[in-house]
Amino acid sequence: MGNAKKNYAPVGVFDSGVGGLTVAREIMRQLPEENVVYFGDTARVPYGSKSKNNIIRFSRQIIRFLLTKEVKAIVIACNTASALALETVQEEVDIPVIGVIEPGARAAVRETKNGCIGVAGTEATIRSQTYTRVIQRLRPDARVIGKACPLFVPLVEEGFAKHPITEEVIDIYLSEMKKTDIDTMILGCTHYPLLRSRIISYFGEAVHIVNPAYETAMDLKAVLEENGIRNDSGQPGTYRFYVSDAAEKFTEFAGSILPYDVDATRQINIEEY
Amino acid sequence: MGNAKKNYAPVGVFDSGVGGLTVAREIMRQLPEENVVYFGDTARVPYGSKSKNNIIRFSRQIIRFLLTKEVKAIVIACNTASALALETVQEEVDIPVIGVIEPGARAAVRETKNGCIGVAGTEATIRSQTYTRVIQRLRPDARVIGKACPLFVPLVEEGFAKHPITEEVIDIYLSEMKKTDIDTMILGCTHYPLLRSRIISYFGEAVHIVNPAYETAMDLKAVLEENGIRNDSGQPGTYRFYVSDAAEKFTEFAGSILPYDVDATRQINIEEY
Repeated sequence: MGNAKKNYAPVGVFDSGVGGLTVAREIMRQLPEENVVYFGDTARVPYGSKSKNNIIRFSRQIIRFLLTKEVKAIVIACNTASALALETVQEEVDIPVIGVIEPGARAAVRETKNGCIGVAGTEATIRSQTYTRVIQRLRPDARVIGKACPLFVPLVEEGFAKHPITEEVIDIYLSEMKKTDIDTMILGCTHYPLLRSRIISYFGEAVHIVNPAYETAMDLKAVLEENGIRNDSGQPGTYRFYVSDAAEKFTEFAGSILPYDVDATRQINIEEY
Repeated sequence: MGNAKKNYAPVGVFDSGVGGLTVAREIMRQLPEENVVYFGDTARVPYGSKSKNNIIRFSRQIIRFLLTKEVKAIVIACNTASALALETVQEEVDIPVIGVIEPGARAAVRETKNGCIGVAGTEATIRSQTYTRVIQRLRPDARVIGKACPLFVPLVEEGFAKHPITEEVIDIYLSEMKKTDIDTMILGCTHYPLLRSRIISYFGEAVHIVNPAYETAMDLKAVLEENGIRNDSGQPGTYRFYVSDAAEKFTEFAGSILPYDVDATRQINIEEY
């Protein structure tokens, strides 16, 4: 296909559920002309407690689905899938695929003064040590302190983000990290930006909180430009949403995260891809 | 196949994850000669927030898998799947399939004096109103007060069953129910028996707590006898465990629920069935 046509093709963005909308929101803000196809794997959410081989299998199915929508690039807007599947799937498709970990690590390395960086994430992300590896590639003397926070996702998904109980759970998971020397902390799961103000006030001003979404959208912009496939139509992008389960619930949640109302979400059977 | 062979065939038991082990434990206790094949759908857990059409699809795949193990009967040891899929799948196979809701409802109707019964369950189970329908079929004047408690499953799965935070979550979900006239409450999710002592002390002696697992095992016994397929080998049953993800984590958890060590769990790709 000619580049003119390819430029207008959508960007595919996927996550295990609604969390990746925090990344999609940033892409829509920074790249308002891009069309976006979003897929949330709500039939198999959460990913954070699941194994590498299944996360790779799920990611491959989703990428096959997104390719049927003729996407020109893919953003894995899920830390767990970025940590466990990005390298594998990048080798399997001939369009650019980017994740959220490299951008988050880069932002943290830029922000930190003392080189001591905290990472909060799912069990699978933390166990994979991907953040540690990527951070130390950028700054070999960095110290990285990871902590799995498995209840954060259900708290967000069940609408407890602003409930006092969430403050207690933040304290349960992060009190040890608070006692360390970290001056920078990465929100290493796309659900966690929805707890951002809580986590900022928990750590206070001494700790800079990094949300990889902003940097990921910057990366996408650079990748589209490098490949000459940035959309410069001058028209606002259109957005389509797909899920593997409970489209209505997703639509409602999406409306609360995105700065506009989501009309409709379509449900597909992702296992067929 | 002759009945002698069929008698020795295993009983299939399935759940979205580890919760159904509380039912399997009761079957092993009451029917020690029966062989059991257990399947936990750990790749797609939890079920409680997902839709009816996906729960039916998941249940069909699992039943097809269990039939490859030549099971003689199936127990759906998951309230959500019992509420949403039991009637559909019962019509599709020619072996007995039982769920946990009918037994739980029967026990509650037997226990209640004033006819006011509480049900705690997942979002999908409560929304389906299946407990209400089954209870009122048995006792038309019964009042049923249902409450979805979506954080209970992640609290149990993440090892917080004995943590003080769980007491607070119990209070958040059940304080309104505590103010009603209920004298009986059903633990309408197979994870909740792992919070049983907490819930008992929250409600105090005035409320009788029903765990459907006991009654489900009784039902299975009756069904096997009616069909002339009860195992009377005089030998202790053997148990096999299968999951769709993270077999090692399951094995560890199973060892903490069952009264013996689980040697090994095998992982299969349930989407292939």
